[in-house]
Order: sequence, then structure tokens, then C-alpha cells
Amino acid sequence: MAWPHKDLLCVSQLSRQDAEEILRAAKSFQEINARPVKKVPILKGKSVILFFAEPSTRTKTSFDVAGKRLSADTFALTKSGSSLVKGESLKDTVLTLQAMKPDAIVMRHQASGAAKFIAERLNCSVINAGDGWHAHPTQALLDAFTLSEHWGNLDGGGLEGRNVCILGDIAHSRVARSNVVLLRLLGAKVRLCAPRTLLPTALAWDVPVYSDLDEAVRGMDAVMCLRLQLERQEAGLLPDLREYSRRYCLTAARMAKANKGALLLHPGPINRGIEIASDVADAKISLILDQVASGVDVRMALLHLYLTRKEAKEERRVAS
Amino acid sequence: MAWPHKDLLCVSQLSRQDAEEILRAAKSFQEINARPVKKVPILKGKSVILFFAEPSTRTKTSFDVAGKRLSADTFALTKSGSSLVKGESLKDTVLTLQAMKPDAIVMRHQASGAAKFIAERLNCSVINAGDGWHAHPTQALLDAFTLSEHWGNLDGGGLEGRNVCILGDIAHSRVARSNVVLLRLLGAKVRLCAPRTLLPTALAWDVPVYSDLDEAVRGMDAVMCLRLQLERQEAGLLPDLREYSRRYCLTAARMAKANKGALLLHPGPINRGIEIASDVADAKISLILDQVASGVDVRMALLHLYLTRKEAKEERRVAS
Amino acid sequence: MAWPHKDLLCVSQLSRQDAEEILRAAKSFQEINARPVKKVPILKGKSVILFFAEPSTRTKTSFDVAGKRLSADTFALTKSGSSLVKGESLKDTVLTLQAMKPDAIVMRHQASGAAKFIAERLNCSVINAGDGWHAHPTQALLDAFTLSEHWGNLDGGGLEGRNVCILGDIAHSRVARSNVVLLRLLGAKVRLCAPRTLLPTALAWDVPVYSDLDEAVRGMDAVMCLRLQLERQEAGLLPDLREYSRRYCLTAARMAKANKGALLLHPGPINRGIEIASDVADAKISLILDQVASGVDVRMALLHLYLTRKEAKEERRVAS
Repeated sequence: MAWPHKDLLCVSQLSRQDAEEILRAAKSFQEINARPVKKVPILKGKSVILFFAEPSTRTKTSFDVAGKRLSADTFALTKSGSSLVKGESLKDTVLTLQAMKPDAIVMRHQASGAAKFIAERLNCSVINAGDGWHAHPTQALLDAFTLSEHWGNLDGGGLEGRNVCILGDIAHSRVARSNVVLLRLLGAKVRLCAPRTLLPTALAWDVPVYSDLDEAVRGMDAVMCLRLQLERQEAGLLPDLREYSRRYCLTAARMAKANKGALLLHPGPINRGIEIASDVADAKISLILDQVASGVDVRMALLHLYLTRKEAKEERRVAS
Repeated sequence: MAWPHKDLLCVSQLSRQDAEEILRAAKSFQEINARPVKKVPILKGKSVILFFAEPSTRTKTSFDVAGKRLSADTFALTKSGSSLVKGESLKDTVLTLQAMKPDAIVMRHQASGAAKFIAERLNCSVINAGDGWHAHPTQALLDAFTLSEHWGNLDGGGLEGRNVCILGDIAHSRVARSNVVLLRLLGAKVRLCAPRTLLPTALAWDVPVYSDLDEAVRGMDAVMCLRLQLERQEAGLLPDLREYSRRYCLTAARMAKANKGALLLHPGPINRGIEIASDVADAKISLILDQVASGVDVRMALLHLYLTRKEAKEERRVAS
Repeated sequence: MAWPHKDLLCVSQLSRQDAEEILRAAKSFQEINARPVKKVPILKGKSVILFFAEPSTRTKTSFDVAGKRLSADTFALTKSGSSLVKGESLKDTVLTLQAMKPDAIVMRHQASGAAKFIAERLNCSVINAGDGWHAHPTQALLDAFTLSEHWGNLDGGGLEGRNVCILGDIAHSRVARSNVVLLRLLGAKVRLCAPRTLLPTALAWDVPVYSDLDEAVRGMDAVMCLRLQLERQEAGLLPDLREYSRRYCLTAARMAKANKGALLLHPGPINRGIEIASDVADAKISLILDQVASGVDVRMALLHLYLTRKEAKEERRVAS
């Protein structure tokens, strides 16, 4: 089957079938990442630009690893190294990059909608690695892959009927926005838990919202804890970090109120003792590092699907 | 034919035959860049250091893409990541780099003459990616390649007898200096247009100079607009940006006074509405993005010519 | 023989036999670095993360070159590009990196003991590229390799019985600490020379210490001059740079008091005229640039030994 999409901007572009195909492909790349030699030649001669206008370790390195393990060439660009600092517009910067004929541009940008804006202007694939508070589709896909690995992957039922609570700063979280949509698409039941100041003013989804964490975790099969960006306090949204932690820090006692065997996710980097207790982060139920490993699997799957979409039936002249 | 030069420091090193050989080689790499798999193994096992002591997106990424598409390994170094910030001299820094046995060092540096200074001290090839106000030979070559593609390449007459106006801050422009020399070498007739404060105090070439833009564009087959570096105003060379734009911004009305089908070039990044009108930059006659694409073609040609110059008749043991 | 160590943290982990095996392997890679095509496929499909939390040109680039010449994929990470700046702990950062399944993490860090701290927590190989004032084992190995190349390598007697003086800021030097141990392990006789304020308060080794340089160089076969970090003066450890240079700058007159043909080493970058006279640095006896070249040879040897240690007898499925 040829992949039908040019760009990955947000998970709402995907049908359930699309999402499941990505997870299935990730499974096959997971197998490659378990080998001593973790490299396949399927994207040899392809060029992927990693344009990160915001700092990032794990997402950028994850895409870089994914690209190189598929034998693609990767080109990393930061905002400070780009002409954006010379006053060039984002549109002109990305048209310049496209003129070098990359096969995909992976972009992180502080403006919500930036990925869509450039995708509409480029012929090459655009993969959104996070745009403002709007979307982080590859994070949601790797979260879903991580959970489905634990709950029996697609054939074993996957996320169907599972209960997941997303906890923390929902308002400013692209991770939350993408996860609500994707988890529900894959059949999970989602609820949110946050103080009122960290909830969006208008909620786009019909999901239950809790402000009491003890109540929220009850009956959950997984809790996805978000990173609290400490600068929110300066913005007046948090009267007191200690008060926040007292009410919303995910502790062992609170996780104990969830279903037996309930899983924990966090997109990282974590603030130990603030949004998550240190022992919970390191507990067996914690999938934090599995998420990172899944990130490489899922991004290999995405690069493969998006970069081979057109040439599926073309003759490929392979550089020897 | 074995390439006779170790270094590319400025275009005045090149004979017309040399320049035409580069353009011919660029043409063959352009064909590779049009393939789905844009990679050839001809520089496999070669190492190219990209040492950019000044910020750069397009030139650095262009060389990086060019190197990797030829299967060379590239190593990017910035000033902040180098020992120059620990007080090491430029000479000691580059001798250190050479000791790692690269095949070429591509260098951008703020000092005019820096490329020549290091080339005289190194055995490996040095390719000047811009030194102060002095020279930017690869930019001039890609500009010539872009124009020759439109005017019929070498066999079709190329640049012979064509009229080109270079417009803007000539005084501080290595792009202008390299283009005047190369365009004339290839048979074009060049004129300059700039306010007197942005002209060199003594002109090294016998070319006409205009201060009136409407007059300057008349009879031109192409206008090459330079970037106005906004910090020139602070230096007292520009009384008023608005006044500059009123007199020197390249607008559609002004381009209409050039020859029919006249082409527009700009090395980028552009300041829309200052040195160039937005609609002109985006018009069909604008070759700005073609220049970027040509940059990869020309730099592949250069890396190939300079890195294979000595071994042309040696037996090459190829890493399997 | 399968390499017995997972990590290279400091040279005191190595037996004399281990150290000699590294030097022997370096010799074979030196031969590869003399070829026109300096690349071998032996680490194809391996991933090496270069995590440099302190600035570095030569060590980082040297590891990068070494990795790529062995066909490994390398991933460079700086502190400013990492989540350390978001407050993530070092442990959490490196566990995240490990989850992407690299084969080795090469780390430089400002804290003494940082390499050991992470090695105890990771399954992948950790190679210490400098931790605080503690250790810089790859520098000591490349220094020993450089000297043994000049004194007849292992079969020719190597360092056995040779006299080496280490000169300069011993107190704050990981280079000195690693060299004292390794040089003695390989049979050399080591002495130190420094002003009292730049000596460790308690000396861990039974070696002679001199404060008079003329006396110290007498009878030496090599002098290893350390970089003087100019910020030591601000810390009150140096009353006066001029006074330091008068007493401790390695001049030609002083080198003349050493044995005939005595060699000079310096880890770089050098401060000409402060710890070393300019003519001495450029003299025939100076091995400063040989050290840089040896760096690539030795690091190729290390990456090869550490990355193939487990799979020595496993079947390797090679990515074609």
C-alpha cells in the first residue's frame, strides 16, 4: 500500500487505519533496533533536514538516529545557525532549504501552525516535531506504540477500551493535545486532570475533566504525566510550586489508586519531586525510557512511510 | 584532465577554461540531483571539514549536502565550538584540523585574506566559502551556472555578450567582487549601481558605475541585487533606510526598464521591501531559488574536482 | 582476543598488556589513515553518541573522524543542546540517550567522576573524553602512542626506561593525571615540574617534583608541557603571568639542557610565549601535530576494541 499523505502535521489527519499502519511499521523497525547492526539501506540517498527552531535533545536526536539507521543523510539546523536570525522570514528560509532538494523537512517551531504553514508551501514532506502548543504528532504516536506494546499490540487488542488519564499542564501542552486525539482514535477512553489555571479556556474535546488527582486516577489503566514548565509560575498561573506538588505530584500512593498494573508515561524531561515523585519515575510501571526507545522505532516507521510514498511504484536507481 | 589547482581562494585564479569546466561538471551533478536517489559513491572515504567562523545557513548546508551526496564524510565546526575562543591562533587551529587528515577544508572567515593565509600553510585543499569583503568564489560560480542554464549553457552561448548590472552595497560585498571578475571572464558586460557611500573608494575594475537605478537597468539582461546589511546604517553609511529604498529598491516598474525577459538574482537572505520588492522576488524572472539549487550542483562539482585532483592517475583502494 | 572492558574511564583500569594492545591496534589504524581512502566498514551500523558538556574542538572532532572512518554513525550533543539546560539530571539525560540504543557514549563533563557515575548506570560502553580535573585517558594513550612511534614502537622498546618530565599546571590537569599513570605503566620514569601553587595538595604518586625548570629538564628524553589556563591567575594561583613565563616557559635554551634529541609534547591549544616559546612549538622536536594525528589512530583503535568486545564470537548480520 502506498502511503497517502505528504505531511504529518497533526494526528487528526490520520485515519485509524493510518495510525495502525504506523504502529505496525514501528514494530518491524523495533526488531531492527534489537539487532547488533541496527542499519538498513532502505532510505539510502535520501536527505532529511532537521530544522529545530526550539531547543530539543530527545526529539532531534531520535529523528537523527532514525534517519541514519535507515541510511538517509541528515542535516541539522538550529535557529541560531539559520538566516532567521538575520531577519529572513520562515517562508523564505524553508523555500531555500527545499531548493537543496531534501526529501523531508522535520521541523520544530515555537509558533502554533508553523508546520501547516510551511507544508502548504513545500513540495517535500513536512513532519511536525512540535509547533507551539498545537501538536506533537510523533510524540503521541510513540506513546500509543509504547502502550500497545504493553497491552498486547494491535492483534492483542491494543488500546481499545483502555482508560488513560492525562495529568498536568494541559493548557500549554502540544503533547496533551495530540494524545487526546490519537488515544481516542485508537479506542481508548481519556480523561484530563489539572488545576483550572492550566486547562484550556475552551475544551475542544468531549472528555471528563478532574481537578482532584485522587479521584482522577481511580479506574485508570495508565496515567500520562506532563512536564510542568517552571516558567508558568512566573506567568502567574501557579501561585506556588509547593502547593502544585502537594495536589498534583504523581506519588506512589496516588498511583496505587489506579487499576492494578496501571502504567505511567511522561514525555520527559521530568522534574523529579514536582510533577512526579522520584520513586514513581523509576518504578517498574514507569515506561519513560520505553517511550524514548519507541521514539526511534516510530520515527523510522514515519520516515520510511513518508519518504517512500511516491516512489512506491517507480523504478529506483540505487546508488551502489 | 587532472584539475590543476589545490585551492579555490578567488575566481581570479581560474582561467576561462577552468571556469567552464566547473560549469560543465555542475551540469552533470544537476542531473544526479534530479534523481530520486541523489547519491554517488565517488568521494567515499574522503573527509571534508566545514569550518564556518561566521554564521551561515545556505552556504554551509549547501556544502554539507554536496559532500554527503558524493558520499564524503563532513565535519562541521563553528567558531564557538573551536579553540579560537580559547585564544588559539587561526594558523594553529587549521594545522590541528589538517593533522586529522581531511581532504579539504571549506572555510568562511570574517577576515579578508584568511583563506589565502591558511591555504599557504596547508597541504590539503582549501575552499573559500567567503572571507571578509574579499571573495566568495563559489557564490559567483553558482550565479554564473544559474544564468548559463537560462541563457543556453556553454554550447548555447552562455554569458557571452550578456549585460548584467550588480546593484546595492558593492563596497562591503564579497559576492559583488567575485561576480564582477567571473562574469567578465565568461564574456558578460558588467555595470555597477550603488549610492556613492556604498562603492569602494577605489574601483579595481574598469566597469561603468551608476548612481541612478532607472538608468542603470536600461539594456540589462540580468540584475543581480545584493543584500543590504542593515548595520550599515548604524555605521553612518546610510542616512535613512527609507531614502535608500526609495532610490535603490528593485521594483517591478524598474525591472520593466531592463531588456525583455531580464533575469533577477539575489544571493539571499533577502530583505523584502528594502533592497528588493516582494513581488519582484517572487516573480517568474526571479532565479533566487534556482541559485540555491545551483549551489549544490556547483559545490558537488568543486568538491569532486579539487578532491580527485591528485589521485587521478593513482590506484584507488576503495573501502568496500 | 575479546576486549575485557565495557568502559574506558581512566588509565588505571588498564593492565600493561591492555595498553599495549591499544597501541598495537592504533598502529594498524595509522596505516589506514595514510591511504587515499581512509574508511573501513568494520563498525557499520554502530551508533556513537558524542556528548560534550564542555567545549572541545580537537577531542570531539577527533572522535567524530575516528567513528566515521570506521563507518559508525556519530551523534554530537552539546550541553546547550541537551535537556541539562532544562534542569534534567545527568543520570536522566544519559539514560534517555541509552534508550536510543547507541553502542557507546563518549562524554566530556566538567565534574570529576562524571564518567564513572554514568558508566555504572549504563549498559552501553562509556568512553571518558575528560572529566573535570580527574582523567583524560584517550589523551594519555595518544601521547604514549606518539612517543612510542618515535622511540621505536613496542618491539623497538617503546617507552621502557625513558625519562619524561610533565611541566606546568599539574594541579588542575586531567592530562597530567592520566599521563603519570600510563607513562609509568609502560615503563617510563616520570617527574613533575610546577610552581607550588599549581601542584596538587597531596600527591598520589611517588614521583620526583621540581620547582626549578632548568634542573627538571636535565636528563629528560621528552618534556610534556601543559596548557596554562589563563583564568588561574584570576583565582589567585598565579601572582603574575610574566613571572610565570620567566620561570616556566619552555624555551629553546631550556630544551637544550634535556637529552640530545629530546621530544616535546603539548595537548593543545597552546599559549605561545606563555607556557611554551613559539620557536620550540614549531621546532622539529615538537610532536604537537603528531599528537593530533595519533588522536585519530588511537580513538579508532578504542572504538573498535570497545564496540566489538561482546560480539566477537556472535554472528554479525551486516547491513548490506
